[in-house]
Amino acid sequence: MDMKSTDEQTVLLGHGSGGQMMKRLIDDIFFEAFGSPELVVGNDAGVAELPATGRIALSTDSFVVTPQFFPGGDIGRLAVCGTVNDVATSGAHVRYLSCGFILEEGYPLDALRRIVTSMADTAREAGVRIITGDTKVVERGGVDGIYINTAGVGEVPAGVDLSGANCAPGDAIVISGTIGDHGIAVMSQREGLAFSTDIVSDAAPLNHLIAAVMDAAPHVRCFRDPTRGGIASTLNEFAAASRTVLEVEEQAVPVRPEVRGACEMLGYDVLQVANEGKMVAIVPADEAEAALAAMRSSRYGEHAAIIGTVCELACGTEPYVRVRTPWGSTRILDMLVGEQLPRIC
Amino acid sequence: MDMKSTDEQTVLLGHGSGGQMMKRLIDDIFFEAFGSPELVVGNDAGVAELPATGRIALSTDSFVVTPQFFPGGDIGRLAVCGTVNDVATSGAHVRYLSCGFILEEGYPLDALRRIVTSMADTAREAGVRIITGDTKVVERGGVDGIYINTAGVGEVPAGVDLSGANCAPGDAIVISGTIGDHGIAVMSQREGLAFSTDIVSDAAPLNHLIAAVMDAAPHVRCFRDPTRGGIASTLNEFAAASRTVLEVEEQAVPVRPEVRGACEMLGYDVLQVANEGKMVAIVPADEAEAALAAMRSSRYGEHAAIIGTVCELACGTEPYVRVRTPWGSTRILDMLVGEQLPRIC
Repeated sequence: MDMKSTDEQTVLLGHGSGGQMMKRLIDDIFFEAFGSPELVVGNDAGVAELPATGRIALSTDSFVVTPQFFPGGDIGRLAVCGTVNDVATSGAHVRYLSCGFILEEGYPLDALRRIVTSMADTAREAGVRIITGDTKVVERGGVDGIYINTAGVGEVPAGVDLSGANCAPGDAIVISGTIGDHGIAVMSQREGLAFSTDIVSDAAPLNHLIAAVMDAAPHVRCFRDPTRGGIASTLNEFAAASRTVLEVEEQAVPVRPEVRGACEMLGYDVLQVANEGKMVAIVPADEAEAALAAMRSSRYGEHAAIIGTVCELACGTEPYVRVRTPWGSTRILDMLVGEQLPRIC
Repeated sequence: MDMKSTDEQTVLLGHGSGGQMMKRLIDDIFFEAFGSPELVVGNDAGVAELPATGRIALSTDSFVVTPQFFPGGDIGRLAVCGTVNDVATSGAHVRYLSCGFILEEGYPLDALRRIVTSMADTAREAGVRIITGDTKVVERGGVDGIYINTAGVGEVPAGVDLSGANCAPGDAIVISGTIGDHGIAVMSQREGLAFSTDIVSDAAPLNHLIAAVMDAAPHVRCFRDPTRGGIASTLNEFAAASRTVLEVEEQAVPVRPEVRGACEMLGYDVLQVANEGKMVAIVPADEAEAALAAMRSSRYGEHAAIIGTVCELACGTEPYVRVRTPWGSTRILDMLVGEQLPRIC
């Protein structure tokens, strides 16, 4: 190779050329970390077994978070968790991931290696395999360091048909733990705020938690991970899809005191702050306690809580979400308008 | 909505917030163009039927081409073709795509709409459905306009096991048409060169062409679309995977005169220039004519040609690719070293 050793510490345009340098980057960093047989065979598509259920779930997410390393996680862990969780919300067994990297010329190879190792570790934890990938390199200024896209595939078991449209009056709204941790952790890291040491991102793969809830509450209506827009967006989407009203008991929503304090200081509604390791489930009332117990016994569900109820839509009105405050009053919970905190994931 | 009408002509940070603006962008542009039932139901994962063959193929590509509109195509057509072709090389029936957009604040919504329409048209032509997606918006300077990732899933028919490792001495190397068109078209557009009006990108979905070849030549060893690095990379990858020597007859390789002229002027080896609508197939000798006929009768295979042979590796030597020139001499064809033309796809 005709590269100077000093150059090999960072990403070069040639690493995206389709030629020798790209081959070496792929061999040394991606194959080394991911190592799945479908990937290392080096064909353009990963071919893998998928039991014959007759239906698949497919989801994708691109990750542009800044900074790329933050308390409790990094862009690599996020890139695996985000897509695993999205596929899992359909009730599918998540099996395979693709990953696409867009790298900036000059990006440190050490940082790339840390991120890729974090992806491999998280994939192992989730029990999924990365079987295909792509790398592009753009010149300095064309991208901010590194962006990662993942897509995930799972098989949907027979009879499973989860959708926001399934929510029905009387159903319980269950959340798997404290909200707002990810958004506040990233924001505090970005702004160098004083509370930064106390709050860590919740980024976590929740496919096993979802499987536990599906076992315990076989008539669960739907799941969604409340990322950008927080549970405000998730609940409004569920209300719209099912033409119902969702009512949340504000006091029942688990929030860490330091996250609540940060939100008060910054003027954020914690219900609109992003999470990366939480799951909202809508469950028939008579299965709510079972779903809650299943979450609480799962690795990432210790602080799970029932936070509200699905209510009937009054004739001639439109779906919405309302919050019942500790003082007995109610307020409307809207989806976020505009942008609160860009590049949170 | 509290957006001024003048703002609605471009992408805003709020379009990536997970809130109301994002919902409107998705409804107005993505659902409008793609319109697949799996997508518009609005869940986080697209759930779709996949006949029970027991194996899937998964592939992904990110697209960062500049300019985003070029003679013969645009980034949207490229984003669909690239992934369709990669999945199809495994012999799979390509069925579903995901798409992830990374948009720059200020990007014109009109351009986005044109790109998305082009994706929808190309997906229709290929017979695939876009069933899930994601949109991120980054601040000005964080990305160069628009980057698109697609991932694709197909089902692999029973008994099909295509891989570069399958190439065997005596096999024929078949190419589906003229090479270098995409690379030179993009480069000429970028540099404003005089020959720009004559050369257009070949970006095309080749899944139907591959299916025709598989029908005509049932023992085909493998396919690969020679994108970045050109057929030089593809043939070197095949040689390495199968531990053979690949020999190319330079005169047999179809090249448009204007592409050849541009390459001579610019000092490029046309064998290393990117294509986006060409396919290399390795076929047993006795099925080569049938494969060639199948390509030529396909929409994008009019100029298909047999361009070489797979040869035995001499004992104690390493796999390589050699080119036989019109004068009877041979030269080694290496993979590209460094970077010739960044952001070609």
